[in-house]
Amino acid sequence: MKVVVIGGGAAGSSAASRAKKTMPNSEVYLLEETNIITHAPCGIPYAIGGLSPIDKLFVYSPEKFEKERGIRVLTNTKVEEIDIDKQAVTISRNGRVDKIVFDKLIIATGAKPIKPIINGVELEGVETIRHPAFTEKLREKINRAHRIIVVGGGYIGIEITENLLRLGKKVLVIEKLSLLMEKVLDKEIALLLTEEVKREGAELHLEESLVEINSKDDKLVVATDKNEYVGDMVILALGVTPNNDLAKKAGIPLGVSNAIVVNKHMETLITNIYAAGDVAEKTNKITGEKTWVPLAPAANKEGYVAGNNAALGNTMVFPGIIGTSITKFNELYIGRTGLTEKEATSKGISVKAKLIKHHSKAHYYPGGSEVYVKLVVRNSDDVIIGAQVAGYTEAVAGYLDALSIAIDKSMSIEELFFADLGYMPAVAPVWHPLVTVARVLLKE
Amino acid sequence: MKVVVIGGGAAGSSAASRAKKTMPNSEVYLLEETNIITHAPCGIPYAIGGLSPIDKLFVYSPEKFEKERGIRVLTNTKVEEIDIDKQAVTISRNGRVDKIVFDKLIIATGAKPIKPIINGVELEGVETIRHPAFTEKLREKINRAHRIIVVGGGYIGIEITENLLRLGKKVLVIEKLSLLMEKVLDKEIALLLTEEVKREGAELHLEESLVEINSKDDKLVVATDKNEYVGDMVILALGVTPNNDLAKKAGIPLGVSNAIVVNKHMETLITNIYAAGDVAEKTNKITGEKTWVPLAPAANKEGYVAGNNAALGNTMVFPGIIGTSITKFNELYIGRTGLTEKEATSKGISVKAKLIKHHSKAHYYPGGSEVYVKLVVRNSDDVIIGAQVAGYTEAVAGYLDALSIAIDKSMSIEELFFADLGYMPAVAPVWHPLVTVARVLLKE
Repeated sequence: MKVVVIGGGAAGSSAASRAKKTMPNSEVYLLEETNIITHAPCGIPYAIGGLSPIDKLFVYSPEKFEKERGIRVLTNTKVEEIDIDKQAVTISRNGRVDKIVFDKLIIATGAKPIKPIINGVELEGVETIRHPAFTEKLREKINRAHRIIVVGGGYIGIEITENLLRLGKKVLVIEKLSLLMEKVLDKEIALLLTEEVKREGAELHLEESLVEINSKDDKLVVATDKNEYVGDMVILALGVTPNNDLAKKAGIPLGVSNAIVVNKHMETLITNIYAAGDVAEKTNKITGEKTWVPLAPAANKEGYVAGNNAALGNTMVFPGIIGTSITKFNELYIGRTGLTEKEATSKGISVKAKLIKHHSKAHYYPGGSEVYVKLVVRNSDDVIIGAQVAGYTEAVAGYLDALSIAIDKSMSIEELFFADLGYMPAVAPVWHPLVTVARVLLKE
Repeated sequence: MKVVVIGGGAAGSSAASRAKKTMPNSEVYLLEETNIITHAPCGIPYAIGGLSPIDKLFVYSPEKFEKERGIRVLTNTKVEEIDIDKQAVTISRNGRVDKIVFDKLIIATGAKPIKPIINGVELEGVETIRHPAFTEKLREKINRAHRIIVVGGGYIGIEITENLLRLGKKVLVIEKLSLLMEKVLDKEIALLLTEEVKREGAELHLEESLVEINSKDDKLVVATDKNEYVGDMVILALGVTPNNDLAKKAGIPLGVSNAIVVNKHMETLITNIYAAGDVAEKTNKITGEKTWVPLAPAANKEGYVAGNNAALGNTMVFPGIIGTSITKFNELYIGRTGLTEKEATSKGISVKAKLIKHHSKAHYYPGGSEVYVKLVVRNSDDVIIGAQVAGYTEAVAGYLDALSIAIDKSMSIEELFFADLGYMPAVAPVWHPLVTVARVLLKE
């Protein structure tokens, strides 16, 4: 049995490991275009900001991974083509072209930054945040720049802005919506973030769309539909898109957001070919709808399932996602899980929602922070289907995890009110914020 | 309709508020023996340690509560007797004895510290941690002492020890079990705590039982079954017991740990009489067994249910507890929820359990801590029925809440493995500790 995995990121590394572990006699290949595997692109903003060493943005060296896991790791290896009929991939490596046949193939090519089709995106100084392999160079360029224009106020835009400000750069953020992260958060929560980013000194230009980029003298000029901004550098943080070129070329069907269609076993519509991670479509567990959210934890687990199933047959199911994500801007942590009120309403689900402001510790215990919790509850059965949390405390992450599990298990607001959550003055008020928001909704 | 509530702590205040709110025309009395209500005894150790102002250890002044909530608040009022036939309570107040008749009575007399029946417990300098009303005096005594002997290494023993060390006192802890908090934690977790308390300079005397206390010169001499220890002061932290004197005298039936027997509506076995909070028996949701755990969050909610039901009839159900509790010692946070492995085994439940050591943040992100997570899983259905978490980070509280909800909703380890928990480098590693422990158990 020969299993070939394309892509050495979260999903691919996890898939290769699991396939080999599940069937130790199998021959497993891990093909990676760059020179590093098991890399952590989520760490790039923090490596740029100097918080994280770049050379720590991967877990295993290819050599160690090969040796410890018994997997053939081929780095600097570009897969040129997948031949689905002959069950083979064409690779180019060190100037040589080869073919590797497979019994099972797992495509884990991840996602790539969106580059809009406008004038100037290829100019020197117009950059994207994409892969730890290119982070050192990006950091050098950023170190030389003074005034940096970030286009896009989503997760990556926020995280890179935090780190550019940390480096003392002048940062302009251009966002087409009226608030930062408004695409994924309800307005009240997006507003908290927007105000905080403004307060910390970023220059925000909201409700402006990128039109083109030009170079003028040593500078770059970003034109929006309303204004022009001059900077030393432009970082495009417009989101990512599935890195589906190989799959598309091979005729493997694509679905939502052009991610590869997979069944619950992570198998594509082509027999013996699996897909996992950011290149694969997801299922939302709440709505049952197909969706696409590129995040490392799901990628790891999808890789685990795909690797298991490629080796053993389809014995394992990936049940889908809830839609949990979290970010921070300095000390403000913001997370969401399930559906926002806006998303629920747009899907025609009748909901009630409530936002409360509460405290993270007993009122008499030092060091507590204000926390905001919003619940979205389905009217038909009083079940929680969405939550958003924000506050100047890492406790936000814990609330989010608790609510993610509550949503996953179809918890009602009455059940949340009676939940037996941890209490002592240093970790929560006696009326825990999650219990309090449930209480408020219960009375309505 | 006249509702009388005995006890102005968490349960009583909550019950009185809810009764009045549910039925605004009712006449609601709140009877409190001390001069403060809505008090927070959990804060006493921190008030002693100087972290929390004593006068903040209550939420409402009696006057404010009376005015804002429309409740008759009688402080410095001792209830002498409950006459269940005549539906009346006898009170003494300002030297006068009165009777108040009731349509509904809610007993919320809380818990009191255990005082062992041995020589010397009444000596000057032998103290317990009991009520915010007596905290100022206790603090003054502690301030004058240098060498303090804490008897009992449970929650209160640990919390007072932390604060005595903070004040620079020499602290000896005497515990009859082989580890601190061993009654409520499995040994591996109790060991982490015990080592930490030792490291911070407390002198531990484990596996020793208190025999008697004597005074000698200006000192107190604590005799155990093995040794004698001399100190300026002794703090008995041997746990609490239901404050059931009134109920017992009135013939209201008592159950587990001598707490008042209640049904799911928080009604006692006597018609028109409810009980809530630390004086009332609880039901464990996992085992269905009657139990007794004195904690403020459940007290608040039982009060809420009792108040609602006293006013409206039995329309609301208190579903029971899971057994969640958390404490900290300096920066080490330790929590438990559901059953420990030891508890499960002692109840004849066949379980598997696993303890992992993991990291609280991405390995490349600064400021992460080691965290320990132990899951207890029922073999018959792979459902999680217990968890313990420890680590030098407040993230422990969030893990505990997430696991409490998981246990409450009968989550299986496979479901926890696939849980969509929040991830970004600053709040979790990409393989979240809770997902990781589930993965390890899944493979077994």
